[in-house]
Amino acid sequence: MKQHYEVVVIGGGIIGCSIAYYLAKEKVDVGLFERDRIGTKTTSAAAGMLGAHSESNGEDTIFSFARSSQQAYNELKDELYTLSGIDIGYREGGILKLVFSDADKYRLTSLLKQPTVKWLDKEEVKKMEPMISPNVLGAAYIMDDMSVMPVQTCESFANSARILGASIFENNDVYKVEEKGDNYLVRTTKGDVEASYVVFATGVYGNGLFKQIGLDEELVPVKGESLIVHNEKHALKHTLFHESCYIVPRTNGKLVIGATMIENDWGDSVSLDGIKVLIEKAKSMLPSAIEWKIDHVKAGLRPSTFDGNPFIGSHPEKEKILVACGHYRNGILLAPATGKMICDFILGKKMNREWVEAFRVDRRQSMVI
Amino acid sequence: MKQHYEVVVIGGGIIGCSIAYYLAKEKVDVGLFERDRIGTKTTSAAAGMLGAHSESNGEDTIFSFARSSQQAYNELKDELYTLSGIDIGYREGGILKLVFSDADKYRLTSLLKQPTVKWLDKEEVKKMEPMISPNVLGAAYIMDDMSVMPVQTCESFANSARILGASIFENNDVYKVEEKGDNYLVRTTKGDVEASYVVFATGVYGNGLFKQIGLDEELVPVKGESLIVHNEKHALKHTLFHESCYIVPRTNGKLVIGATMIENDWGDSVSLDGIKVLIEKAKSMLPSAIEWKIDHVKAGLRPSTFDGNPFIGSHPEKEKILVACGHYRNGILLAPATGKMICDFILGKKMNREWVEAFRVDRRQSMVI
Amino acid sequence: MKQHYEVVVIGGGIIGCSIAYYLAKEKVDVGLFERDRIGTKTTSAAAGMLGAHSESNGEDTIFSFARSSQQAYNELKDELYTLSGIDIGYREGGILKLVFSDADKYRLTSLLKQPTVKWLDKEEVKKMEPMISPNVLGAAYIMDDMSVMPVQTCESFANSARILGASIFENNDVYKVEEKGDNYLVRTTKGDVEASYVVFATGVYGNGLFKQIGLDEELVPVKGESLIVHNEKHALKHTLFHESCYIVPRTNGKLVIGATMIENDWGDSVSLDGIKVLIEKAKSMLPSAIEWKIDHVKAGLRPSTFDGNPFIGSHPEKEKILVACGHYRNGILLAPATGKMICDFILGKKMNREWVEAFRVDRRQSMVI
Amino acid sequence: MKQHYEVVVIGGGIIGCSIAYYLAKEKVDVGLFERDRIGTKTTSAAAGMLGAHSESNGEDTIFSFARSSQQAYNELKDELYTLSGIDIGYREGGILKLVFSDADKYRLTSLLKQPTVKWLDKEEVKKMEPMISPNVLGAAYIMDDMSVMPVQTCESFANSARILGASIFENNDVYKVEEKGDNYLVRTTKGDVEASYVVFATGVYGNGLFKQIGLDEELVPVKGESLIVHNEKHALKHTLFHESCYIVPRTNGKLVIGATMIENDWGDSVSLDGIKVLIEKAKSMLPSAIEWKIDHVKAGLRPSTFDGNPFIGSHPEKEKILVACGHYRNGILLAPATGKMICDFILGKKMNREWVEAFRVDRRQSMVI
Ligand SMILES: Cc1cc2nc3c(=O)[nH]c(=O)nc-3n(C[C@H](O)[C@H](O)[C@H](O)COP(=O)(O)OP(=O)(O)OC[C@H]3O[C@@H](n4cnc5c(N)ncnc54)[C@H](O)[C@@H]3O)c2cc1C
Ligand SMILES: Cc1cc2nc3c(=O)[nH]c(=O)nc-3n(C[C@H](O)[C@H](O)[C@H](O)COP(=O)(O)OP(=O)(O)OC[C@H]3O[C@@H](n4cnc5c(N)ncnc54)[C@H](O)[C@@H]3O)c2cc1C
Ligand SMILES: Cc1cc2nc3c(=O)[nH]c(=O)nc-3n(C[C@H](O)[C@H](O)[C@H](O)COP(=O)(O)OP(=O)(O)OC[C@H]3O[C@@H](n4cnc5c(N)ncnc54)[C@H](O)[C@@H]3O)c2cc1C
Ligand SMILES: Cc1cc2nc3c(=O)[nH]c(=O)nc-3n(C[C@H](O)[C@H](O)[C@H](O)COP(=O)(O)OP(=O)(O)OC[C@H]3O[C@@H](n4cnc5c(N)ncnc54)[C@H](O)[C@@H]3O)c2cc1C
Repeated sequence: MKQHYEVVVIGGGIIGCSIAYYLAKEKVDVGLFERDRIGTKTTSAAAGMLGAHSESNGEDTIFSFARSSQQAYNELKDELYTLSGIDIGYREGGILKLVFSDADKYRLTSLLKQPTVKWLDKEEVKKMEPMISPNVLGAAYIMDDMSVMPVQTCESFANSARILGASIFENNDVYKVEEKGDNYLVRTTKGDVEASYVVFATGVYGNGLFKQIGLDEELVPVKGESLIVHNEKHALKHTLFHESCYIVPRTNGKLVIGATMIENDWGDSVSLDGIKVLIEKAKSMLPSAIEWKIDHVKAGLRPSTFDGNPFIGSHPEKEKILVACGHYRNGILLAPATGKMICDFILGKKMNREWVEAFRVDRRQSMVI
Repeated sequence: MKQHYEVVVIGGGIIGCSIAYYLAKEKVDVGLFERDRIGTKTTSAAAGMLGAHSESNGEDTIFSFARSSQQAYNELKDELYTLSGIDIGYREGGILKLVFSDADKYRLTSLLKQPTVKWLDKEEVKKMEPMISPNVLGAAYIMDDMSVMPVQTCESFANSARILGASIFENNDVYKVEEKGDNYLVRTTKGDVEASYVVFATGVYGNGLFKQIGLDEELVPVKGESLIVHNEKHALKHTLFHESCYIVPRTNGKLVIGATMIENDWGDSVSLDGIKVLIEKAKSMLPSAIEWKIDHVKAGLRPSTFDGNPFIGSHPEKEKILVACGHYRNGILLAPATGKMICDFILGKKMNREWVEAFRVDRRQSMVI
Repeated sequence: MKQHYEVVVIGGGIIGCSIAYYLAKEKVDVGLFERDRIGTKTTSAAAGMLGAHSESNGEDTIFSFARSSQQAYNELKDELYTLSGIDIGYREGGILKLVFSDADKYRLTSLLKQPTVKWLDKEEVKKMEPMISPNVLGAAYIMDDMSVMPVQTCESFANSARILGASIFENNDVYKVEEKGDNYLVRTTKGDVEASYVVFATGVYGNGLFKQIGLDEELVPVKGESLIVHNEKHALKHTLFHESCYIVPRTNGKLVIGATMIENDWGDSVSLDGIKVLIEKAKSMLPSAIEWKIDHVKAGLRPSTFDGNPFIGSHPEKEKILVACGHYRNGILLAPATGKMICDFILGKKMNREWVEAFRVDRRQSMVI
Repeated sequence: MKQHYEVVVIGGGIIGCSIAYYLAKEKVDVGLFERDRIGTKTTSAAAGMLGAHSESNGEDTIFSFARSSQQAYNELKDELYTLSGIDIGYREGGILKLVFSDADKYRLTSLLKQPTVKWLDKEEVKKMEPMISPNVLGAAYIMDDMSVMPVQTCESFANSARILGASIFENNDVYKVEEKGDNYLVRTTKGDVEASYVVFATGVYGNGLFKQIGLDEELVPVKGESLIVHNEKHALKHTLFHESCYIVPRTNGKLVIGATMIENDWGDSVSLDGIKVLIEKAKSMLPSAIEWKIDHVKAGLRPSTFDGNPFIGSHPEKEKILVACGHYRNGILLAPATGKMICDFILGKKMNREWVEAFRVDRRQSMVI
């Protein structure tokens, strides 16, 4: 281990690995420290939808950020494969946001104004997905939402970063960050290291460190449980989505049925209750789902912030401490844009002002005033 | 591989392994052939209750047979441990057959006459299992039903048999059994072997071979799905049982919630539907079960016969071909008595006439007449 | 289950699934029966190299067959993805056949005459794979050999066949095939079915059935054990190959180190001995391999024939019984060409005479005479 | 979560769980916080030998401590089973410390003086373990060393503690311990809690917290890799031991081959190199081991201290902060005595002076002076 890195990234989920990748691409000297193994925490539980539209109404700041991130994947998938040899499981096909009631449809009004979104009536939905529930009245068909395999994507970011020169340390907890002259001293399991910049990409797991560096924000976990099943007989072609649940077909022939929303639960196991809810939800969208065979179950903690948007930016007082946390339901989608934005901060590049404002770390304080 | 065994056993589930054990103990020269690995088929999906009472009303022939088998486990557990070093996970504690309605209670009338069975009212049940559903009106407490771990038990029978001199061949399919002079020629993947006696312990998987040797009976699979969960907080002390479902605590700190009953399904995967049913059932017995954490899911095929009793005895025309199949919901319980009975057949020992009649292979024909 | 299929395929490994796919594409009414689950036997243990050159000297009949099969994958990968949504993990990059001695190099003489094969000296090899052993003197670089993920490929064939109309039955053993008038009666676990044509795609597991239908040939298993490891730090770009061992990088970021050759072993477990040999072999090619982290181990049985070539063609006396077995080390590679060839037999299309002769089921007899 | 506990234990490995158990038994109000899940770190990688003799020469202080701990298991196994229903897999049979050379024998001199240790010559060893290597010249037979299953033991301590009133929190990281009046404020993922006493049972993972509370000591990990194999054919009856390697038979029918010693490696994966060494070692003790079938591999980090003895006692300046870490190769063995000793500290009971001195947290400083 070297004694000094220009940038130390804390956390090797998809956010930290994307940051390391963009920095390494710009030849910045970066070291990433992950407590466990790369991509084994929240990232490993994600479904992998790149749902720029499905997760937003298409009008807020996060939407433009999400769209730019989504589009970045288009090139990234080849770039990462060429470097690392790992296929990120990119899959097109679009998302059907199902409508079961007038209220459901009403909520889609602004989404339906987007150019790549199309209204499908009952018959059209049935044609696209013959096994769909007869209770479905129609759907917003988001043509250009796609999905990836989160773990492979994260590993591909990490290995590509390595190949471009980044140092990645696993099983290496950072337990303290201290000021030391103009630099920071990062104290880790394997020893101490200095850095000019420190980036917190700690997902929901950073509250302890936050307090140490005088950050008031606290991330709250929203546990999500999923069922992974074998895709047999009728291959689902599109992701189905209703309320916060979905069925996502993957390029490995499996389907993810997700996900529950359990606030403030730090555990990562799957309860009988959660599974029951998911089965009922899947059945309501696709009655034949009930015959699917279980492969395994999985849970993870979405890192949520007070307003649902991530923190991306500098510590209010220490500008060389950067934060990239709180990506809640959308960290896979937002990873490229977040990586790029943190890289731009460090290189002093020009950035989209709106995004900078929307994701400021101390925006709550400003609000209060 | 030798060219001749006194007895060839086909099938290495708990029935075949118990037979090999009892024969080896009597110094009979025995070879067992298993298509897959020992104990990986139906046996691996069993809960492991030794429910002599819970599965019977305490009055029929099968009950006396079951009781003798259950009692055999009492000595076997030490005997097998001493020989093989494998602990079979024997666990006492008794079974609570729950009563939710008058009809439920009515069905327990004859069971409650058994000396080791006691009626508990609502309060007494609550005292024994504080988390029990408030809808439970009482229970038949079967004090001396116990449980074992099926896979370990099967492996312990197999390894003990080996140590006593039996030859056990895994990954070895028997695809044909032919007469050859006074002997039988058993044709297997790894070559042919002769035997004076052939025992079919093929579980539900023997229909093909049965036809070849002129046996008319067909076994029908009744698939059962289970959920294995982590036992946390409130350790369940007793097995809970209602209708055909149950929750069984195991000596490894896990609980089995079982089992669905799906006739004529040959698959061994677990469907969403099955899991849903089990969760609802567990919740109806123990509302707090809903918080349990899932470990894994499992399915297996109960080998069922036309009247629910096993076939144990000779082929109607070829007396040196013996059958030991069709143990349906109770093969773990009945393994020792079955092993002993087949051994007695071969050694020409005296046997319980009632049992011989009840389990005769051609009893359906006699019935018809 | 229907009562009659035009073609019944026995066996759902990659060979059977490819056959079902090609038949379904031609709108032939096909039913496939698999004893276990699709792709869980030999196919699941393959590394997935499409090594037309690496497995041959480029001159024999099998080579032209292999090349045509290899090239078929080029279109298949997209075709199968479009139909089934399953990505087969196709990966280019080529194979380096390493040379450690003059004798090694001598053996490559004819291979090196192939147009897509290039000799690399020590330095050139080192440039392509910087971590290569210093003992490597050079390599034959086979530019157009590639690899796939065997299980995904097999499932993708199966699901695509289903979508095109084939019926696929899992957990369904075929225990007898009898003549019945002009048809065949196929007796299976789930009941009997008639067929005009029966195709044996039973891998190494068909010897029992072969005898029943009067086929003299016997397939012999050659067990192969592999180690699957995590690819860290230095991404291997090319498959390394020496003697019968290899290291294959996969699109999911793992590497397969394979494989031992143990004749006549029917088991599917991995022994300490096998692992030891593989580790030593990997180390001799790539010394840093010793630091790789183990993911899991796996074994499977290569179906070998007396002369190393597969059987593809009709039963000598019953021309509507077809055989497609014995693909030994190359079943993944040969699956498309085999599927196509069986399909051509059934549709009475013109075929490559040389291939028909080379793979005839009764070629041993002709040889003897 | 309550706001105050009399004692907070940090860490839910076997040491923390044993401490919670002994405290709960004495009706002390105890809360235990585990970052991950109970027993999933070092404890989950242990073989489970209770090797009071095999790990010591029988003369030092640690030996008397180890013996008392070993003997405690004798009662504990039933006590824990009765409370929690979890069987800890206690197994007798003794350990054979093998001798391959005069030097080996010489090192056993003082061990052989112990009353329960017996010298066996070559023939006697062969009689006890017929498959032993012909190179073995004899063995010290330690009759009363036994083994347990570490994970079950740890879970059984935890569940028993719960049943006796302890509160156990999983997925709950403690990131800071501060003084607050006479109490300590323990800051955790799920919120803050006060305690009169805080016990650090953090295994090798506590260095960060240590610094925060002004403790100078640092624990160093010594990674150990193991192979878990299926026990077939010849059941090993005794644990074999040579140098730091061993083969331990377990009550579930499996064997553990352990373990490498890799200093200062914080990873928990198993390398090809490690496996190779283990296979060679196992083969040198028992040549037929080479045929064993692999079940899985596993690694963990032994928490080592500067002198190889654990720290058990008070913080040099803050006597209500207690430490119970650094059990190196013997934490399973030493768990009961450690739990009891910490409990005695808190209850102000009289303790063995020699042990208190030998395990003092600041003994290094005294040494230096
Ligand atoms: C059920 C579920 C479904 C989801 N589906 C989607 C989806 O379809 N699309 C989508 O875009 N998003 C989805 N998400 C959200 C997405 O998973 C998260 O937003 C994203 O994974 C967050 O990534 P991260 O890198 O911030 O966090 P993590 O993956 O948790 O990574 C943070 C890492 O930091 C490490 N760490 C923390 N503290 C330290 C320290 N002190 N020292 C060293 N290392 C440290 C941790 O060990 C961890 O590995 C889903 C989430 C869940 C739970
Ligand atoms: C969900 C579930 C729960 C259950 N719970 C209990 C319980 O609590 N208590 C209880 O007593 N019972 C229980 N049972 C029933 C019990 O599991 C079965 O009765 C018992 O396992 C049957 O054992 P077996 O040896 O006959 O069958 P199997 O375990 O299926 O063994 C038969 C073996 O024969 C082999 N074989 C077949 N044909 C051939 C051939 N031609 N060549 C070579 N090998 C061949 C097969 O591969 C197989 O391994 C349960 C069953 C299920 C499914
Ligand atoms: C370690 C190893 C590495 C290999 N690497 C490569 C490689 O890199 N490239 C390559 O091209 N090849 C490779 N191979 C070879 C390749 O795996 C095989 O040639 C190929 O999988 C054979 O496919 P199959 O469909 O014939 O057999 P299987 O996959 O064994 O399929 C046969 C199926 O038939 C079923 N069956 C049998 N009898 C019946 C019955 N009576 N009723 C119903 N179903 C039945 C079986 O259950 C089985 O699923 C490798 C093999 C091994 C072992
Ligand atoms: C390969 C191997 C073989 C072994 N064999 C044997 C053997 O045969 N016999 C024997 O006696 N011993 C053996 N050992 C040694 C034994 O495993 C250890 O001594 C013992 O497990 C140590 O237990 P522990 O509770 O101290 O540590 P751990 O099991 O590591 O538990 C410490 C716990 O503290 C938690 N923790 C740490 N920091 C925090 C925090 N800040 N907040 C919350 N939680 C925290 C960790 O997550 C962890 O779960 C072996 C070890 C290895 C690696």
